[in-house]
Amino acid sequence: MTRFKLTLEYDGGPYVGWQRQKNGPSVQAALEAAARGFCGEDITVHGAGRTDAGVHALGQVAHIDIPQDRDAATVLDALNHFLIDEPVVVLSAAVVGESFHARFSATGRLYRYRILNRRPRPGTTRGHVWWVPVPLDVKAMNDAAQELIGEHDFTSFRATLCQAKSPVKTIDRLTVRQDGEEVVIEVSARSFLHHQVRNIAGTLALVGKRKWSRQDVADALAARSRASGGPTAPADGLYLVCVDY
Amino acid sequence: MTRFKLTLEYDGGPYVGWQRQKNGPSVQAALEAAARGFCGEDITVHGAGRTDAGVHALGQVAHIDIPQDRDAATVLDALNHFLIDEPVVVLSAAVVGESFHARFSATGRLYRYRILNRRPRPGTTRGHVWWVPVPLDVKAMNDAAQELIGEHDFTSFRATLCQAKSPVKTIDRLTVRQDGEEVVIEVSARSFLHHQVRNIAGTLALVGKRKWSRQDVADALAARSRASGGPTAPADGLYLVCVDY
Repeated sequence: MTRFKLTLEYDGGPYVGWQRQKNGPSVQAALEAAARGFCGEDITVHGAGRTDAGVHALGQVAHIDIPQDRDAATVLDALNHFLIDEPVVVLSAAVVGESFHARFSATGRLYRYRILNRRPRPGTTRGHVWWVPVPLDVKAMNDAAQELIGEHDFTSFRATLCQAKSPVKTIDRLTVRQDGEEVVIEVSARSFLHHQVRNIAGTLALVGKRKWSRQDVADALAARSRASGGPTAPADGLYLVCVDY
Repeated sequence: MTRFKLTLEYDGGPYVGWQRQKNGPSVQAALEAAARGFCGEDITVHGAGRTDAGVHALGQVAHIDIPQDRDAATVLDALNHFLIDEPVVVLSAAVVGESFHARFSATGRLYRYRILNRRPRPGTTRGHVWWVPVPLDVKAMNDAAQELIGEHDFTSFRATLCQAKSPVKTIDRLTVRQDGEEVVIEVSARSFLHHQVRNIAGTLALVGKRKWSRQDVADALAARSRASGGPTAPADGLYLVCVDY
């Protein structure tokens, strides 16, 4: 048995999310079906993060234990062969030790959130951006974002159904920048609470619309109540960019 | 009656192309249905270029004559309202004189061709790039592209079914550059022959794979025979970026 680290890109649109569920197709199930096609038996694929329905990945990481003696290039090509009809692709495969765990070994995750900030709806980027038609003040968003950097109790930015034991997380980097017609938020942390990035994006959009000030963001964080945080931005604009180990 | 110039973005994936056809949905028909919803009568929409099935637009231009007295903001919002279920969006609308014709008044067109140049298939960009898994020599492609700049008989790069009277066209600019994992070809001319950009992209890819030299491109051009040109690259990677007047 050999453990492989897989780096994955996928379009989250057609899936109920990363995690295998009874109510529809998941990225995990697509990968497990591919592994079954390759290995002829049921094999669990463990992901670094359980992306929500509609959330995309440019560099999700997973690990898989292959019972047969196969090299990394063969695993890569075989999984991609069986994934041919899915918008999921294995970007790389590498042999790792048995102590490697995609989720528990991760030391950092980088998410990107794309807002299409123009009056007309998305045309070619439907399902891949959050459309905000009113002009956003990007500098104000970036300023307010500073309030969220560092170690905080993120209860105000946490889904009420979040199962994490502690609401305390440390945001290492949080930036907001203009990129053509898009406003791009990037945030990195060792790990995140459920909906944390989407709730931060929804809150910073309020700042961008000048409905909230930087102080309002600080107050929302201090309130430690989900009702005090901003709305949850849609899944469409969110990308898991990479996972560090 | 007032004539409006419309600038359009669309995802060409679901359409048989720009032009109204009996065999499936077209961008033109989608816009004409929206105009009918808005004005209550049949109105023809005239486009600057007849993009093929699957070809996208970031800045296609069309004109439309609206019988009622409406301002540009109303036309923009009304058309977008009726286009809500289509991946077609009107980016801007402007009043123009009756002498303006989207196709015949155009003085330049810029197309972009996106090649995803990496071993794994596209994940999040399926249908929006041409996937070429073998490494491309971008510098050689850009060098060879110089052979095609200027006024030439482009018979070797013209679809056999092309209806243009003359195969002579003038390419003003043709560049090939690396952009992350993508190789991006941009080409501008007053007008193009049918499949000209896709045939150029297919030919330059042969150069990128080192199957063809710059001289082979010059020879293909000089042969003035479609059989001498390279293959037609898929529609997925092609974008009509803008039209000048």
